[in-house]
Amino acid sequence: MDLTKMKNPKFLKELNTEELEILAAEIRQFLINKLSVTGGHLGANLGVVELTLALHKQFNSPKDKLIFDVGHQSYIHKMLTGRTDQFDTLRQFKGLCGFPKMNESEHDVWETGHSSTSLSAAMGMAIARDMKKEKNFVVPIIGDGALTGGMALEALNHIGHEKKNLTVILNDNEMSIAGNVGALHNALGRMRSAGKYNRVKDELEVLLKRIPAVGGKIAQTAERVKDSMKYFMVPGMLFEEFGFTYFGPVDGHDFRDLEKHIAYAKKTEGPVLIHVITQKGKGYKPAEMDEKDKWHGVGPYKIDSGEKIKPVNTAPAWSQVVSDTLETIAATDDRLAVITPAMILGSKLEKFQERFPERLFDVGIAEQHATTMSAGLATQGMKPFLVIYSTFLQRAYDQLVHDVCRQNLNVAFGIDRAGLVGADGETHQGVFDIAFLRHLPNMVIMMPKDENECQHMVYTATNYDSGPIAVRFPRGNGLGVPMDASLSTIPIGKWEVLKKGADAVILTFGTTIEMALAASENLQKQGIHVEVINARFIKPLDETILHERMQKNIPILTLEEAVLKGGFGSAVLEFAEENNYHPYIKRMGIPDRYIEQGEVDQLLEEINLTKDQIITEINQLLLSSNDKQKRA
Amino acid sequence: MDLTKMKNPKFLKELNTEELEILAAEIRQFLINKLSVTGGHLGANLGVVELTLALHKQFNSPKDKLIFDVGHQSYIHKMLTGRTDQFDTLRQFKGLCGFPKMNESEHDVWETGHSSTSLSAAMGMAIARDMKKEKNFVVPIIGDGALTGGMALEALNHIGHEKKNLTVILNDNEMSIAGNVGALHNALGRMRSAGKYNRVKDELEVLLKRIPAVGGKIAQTAERVKDSMKYFMVPGMLFEEFGFTYFGPVDGHDFRDLEKHIAYAKKTEGPVLIHVITQKGKGYKPAEMDEKDKWHGVGPYKIDSGEKIKPVNTAPAWSQVVSDTLETIAATDDRLAVITPAMILGSKLEKFQERFPERLFDVGIAEQHATTMSAGLATQGMKPFLVIYSTFLQRAYDQLVHDVCRQNLNVAFGIDRAGLVGADGETHQGVFDIAFLRHLPNMVIMMPKDENECQHMVYTATNYDSGPIAVRFPRGNGLGVPMDASLSTIPIGKWEVLKKGADAVILTFGTTIEMALAASENLQKQGIHVEVINARFIKPLDETILHERMQKNIPILTLEEAVLKGGFGSAVLEFAEENNYHPYIKRMGIPDRYIEQGEVDQLLEEINLTKDQIITEINQLLLSSNDKQKRA
Repeated sequence: MDLTKMKNPKFLKELNTEELEILAAEIRQFLINKLSVTGGHLGANLGVVELTLALHKQFNSPKDKLIFDVGHQSYIHKMLTGRTDQFDTLRQFKGLCGFPKMNESEHDVWETGHSSTSLSAAMGMAIARDMKKEKNFVVPIIGDGALTGGMALEALNHIGHEKKNLTVILNDNEMSIAGNVGALHNALGRMRSAGKYNRVKDELEVLLKRIPAVGGKIAQTAERVKDSMKYFMVPGMLFEEFGFTYFGPVDGHDFRDLEKHIAYAKKTEGPVLIHVITQKGKGYKPAEMDEKDKWHGVGPYKIDSGEKIKPVNTAPAWSQVVSDTLETIAATDDRLAVITPAMILGSKLEKFQERFPERLFDVGIAEQHATTMSAGLATQGMKPFLVIYSTFLQRAYDQLVHDVCRQNLNVAFGIDRAGLVGADGETHQGVFDIAFLRHLPNMVIMMPKDENECQHMVYTATNYDSGPIAVRFPRGNGLGVPMDASLSTIPIGKWEVLKKGADAVILTFGTTIEMALAASENLQKQGIHVEVINARFIKPLDETILHERMQKNIPILTLEEAVLKGGFGSAVLEFAEENNYHPYIKRMGIPDRYIEQGEVDQLLEEINLTKDQIITEINQLLLSSNDKQKRA
Repeated sequence: MDLTKMKNPKFLKELNTEELEILAAEIRQFLINKLSVTGGHLGANLGVVELTLALHKQFNSPKDKLIFDVGHQSYIHKMLTGRTDQFDTLRQFKGLCGFPKMNESEHDVWETGHSSTSLSAAMGMAIARDMKKEKNFVVPIIGDGALTGGMALEALNHIGHEKKNLTVILNDNEMSIAGNVGALHNALGRMRSAGKYNRVKDELEVLLKRIPAVGGKIAQTAERVKDSMKYFMVPGMLFEEFGFTYFGPVDGHDFRDLEKHIAYAKKTEGPVLIHVITQKGKGYKPAEMDEKDKWHGVGPYKIDSGEKIKPVNTAPAWSQVVSDTLETIAATDDRLAVITPAMILGSKLEKFQERFPERLFDVGIAEQHATTMSAGLATQGMKPFLVIYSTFLQRAYDQLVHDVCRQNLNVAFGIDRAGLVGADGETHQGVFDIAFLRHLPNMVIMMPKDENECQHMVYTATNYDSGPIAVRFPRGNGLGVPMDASLSTIPIGKWEVLKKGADAVILTFGTTIEMALAASENLQKQGIHVEVINARFIKPLDETILHERMQKNIPILTLEEAVLKGGFGSAVLEFAEENNYHPYIKRMGIPDRYIEQGEVDQLLEEINLTKDQIITEINQLLLSSNDKQKRA
């Protein structure tokens, strides 16, 4: 059929299994074709084609609430709800979002990006429904990986207690973003294999009838055994303990099996969990055979061979530089332990894991635990290095406040994907970490200007023994600079003058250094000499440099790819205030709103974080400052 | 014995059960006596007297690591490790801390205050031990309430998977801080009652032997039944599913039972969980009979009667004002739902709960879930009002960023215990919330000057339909001002001039208004006229007022009982920078370090947040500003 004609999922109710199977095949082919050009979350979506169709057939969206945990598996849902024709713009600036988005469709009732939020959201919606005395189904769809996130477990505990009607779909594909971690995963494994014992229940009845009648205590025991048998032979014991009615395991690629169980679930009172087994990448061989989950999020690829079409960039990825440096350090420093919350692939820790398997701890999607476990390691004289995306470190804010910084423990953080991240959009922008870390006592925050400085910062972090320290680094690839052969430490709080100039000074760090240098070059042609300083320590500031420039009343421009409120520029304002300086200061950075998806350059342009704007601001600063001097 | 002579817990190893029982009684009496004067966490400590003695007898602290979750139950541990003579100063300025504190003793290996951190810390310590090839026991002691916190569940999942040696003590007293919530609690209840079936296992053997031999599939089933019997008859199924070896339930007031199980556990490989049943308040009748957990944290009391000695203060508690106002609003606004993470008592929501039981949701210790569940409610047009301590809201930072503010949902927050909290000390100071909320897009932050304004702010919050909004309010009692009979809304972002003056202006809010007014009065006598403004909206700022004052170049003093970095004062600096104003601005607030326990007045004095300092700063500001004008 013409897939772009699908405007409302209601049409699914008329389709029989064979028709659904044909549609599923067409949707798969569409996704394989489209994503080979745009890139996107191919594996996850190919895994839930039948599941999404079955859910939309059995439920009535948007009256019934389908809530996609994480949300990168919502492509089929988007197609069914009238967005098929927008897939050419997937994950692009002003294009179709890769996650559910309320302003795209009334069928997107909850926005996601981070994992493990769906059960809590669903509970809120179920409570609201009951308070309003309405009738509808609330259906969170959560993966086995997301289930181990603390918030999801908190929600399970509360939902099982309150007994509200709620239909949880557990999409178990045996891997979260990489291989799965944790006892829950093992329990799910037992449930999957227990499937074949389903007939056991009937046999058990026969067996129990053969037990001769006995009296007294033994009889009571026998009774108790019988009562509990059904309970114990059901594979979903764990969820039953949590207060859920468990259905499954269900073959997530078999429409009959899916629909039958969903129909059961709809008739069941109280919270229900349907355990659906799916295969990531289903229907596309290269993705099906992907053990390391490299088809989770992909760029463009050749359909026939599955070969990835890589952008030409010889510079190493920032994550790789950090990981390689950790490997070098681990070879001589026994204290080093590397911790990651389910991001071995994303943070490029595979090589490290291969070489030091006993010193790499993947804790699964569990950022809070990762952080406080690192603090525990530090109390014993170890040097934990937690590699974590900026946006996911948000999950561990209290652990930073209460466990790491308050106890002033030597935990090092490699903050990956700091700054704008591009196609993943507003849920993933790493733009808050400076604002939420800077006010924490004892915290040191660095950002390198290039990958060579990055390796020295990682080394500095692992050698720092006075408390917590963070190196933040951007998504993507470095600049391709030559790498020093040996590692050295950078003095804490010491900035670097990159370009001299006496008329004004730009204080900046990381990704924005390049545009600052370019602006300074341009201004030089106008006869304006602007110093550019690599403010590589965001905390503590280089007070020597600041005193010197402020004493001379040199106009200052601060520039950061991070939120302005409470950010680095504010730190400079605070320094001036604390020391009774009154230079002209202007701050550039990210305004007080969420920044959507797009190429980083497009986003920077949109928020006016550009070379041209720097030139404008410097000119303006000099004008104001000269005015003042004239008045003086 | 003379309890102050206890310097090292080693002496316990020589004591027999009868001697331990005598010591336990002496310790109980000591605590009941001492806390009747100082106040403190009586109930929790009386519950763990035997448990703490048994642990210190069976383990070798500090080589073995005893980690007290939350930590308010560490008083007996403190006594055994040489701090009995310091109990007169308990929870006082420069006195004995109410929580474990590394700088007090080498036996305090991990500091706490917030709940649910012990398992993660223990896992870090166990990993460190194994990396260093050392031998010791790591023993987290966690309550049933703290176990439902997301981080503790993340840790359970990881620990059960990694199979490290770890001895978890589950201190199950059937209530967290109030009655317990959640499916886990129900499961624990089943385990407790299953205790009496312990003999069932043996009887089961007899029973199974009576099953006649059968062939084929039925035989396999029978085999499977037998294999699994032991598993299923063990009450700790849930923990076994998580990968732990479960011991229990154990009578937490029976030394023989305790020591026997701890000894078993020490010989068991892999993670072990000992389920210990204790009674909060054990040995002190008024506390034993306390169903509502009012003896959790107490002030001074009369020993004989258990009557609480209340400070004379007729003004209502801030929490009560908020709760009463919510009750009033709930009577007419059907959309209102109140959410609390295990703080019905602390946030004084009992009356609300009694009147609107179906609109009060206690989710247990689960701040992340509480926040995102509130967001879910808001998507359905409800008006969730989450009452949460400032320090615990830290746990939900990502939920604020990603779920509430990003989706711009109408969630209202009542931020309790904002500012310095006093005796609970550095883990509980509510001083970060402005810095971590202010940079979140769409967020509105208010703080009232008195309880009358507080009720109007609560009303404003529940009537605000443009996104998230927070009312922060301090610990303790209001000012005793008259209350308006009817509720009204305050225009968003509108400040209030409390006292006029043309020479300088103080911008402040909440608790610090009083000292600002007093300083202004004093200065007036010197002929200096200082305006005092109630900056009740911390975000958004009152731009009209700011433009007006800054255009006139009036010197500005900002004053806040919150961290300076990224705080309200910084917002004023940012406003000046953004609008190209250059007035003289000085900020007063909390410096970049953690603030320990003490009376709030003592703490304010220590950090120079006083009327006198305001006077000094204003004089200095005027001097600098006049200098500048002379130069101009």
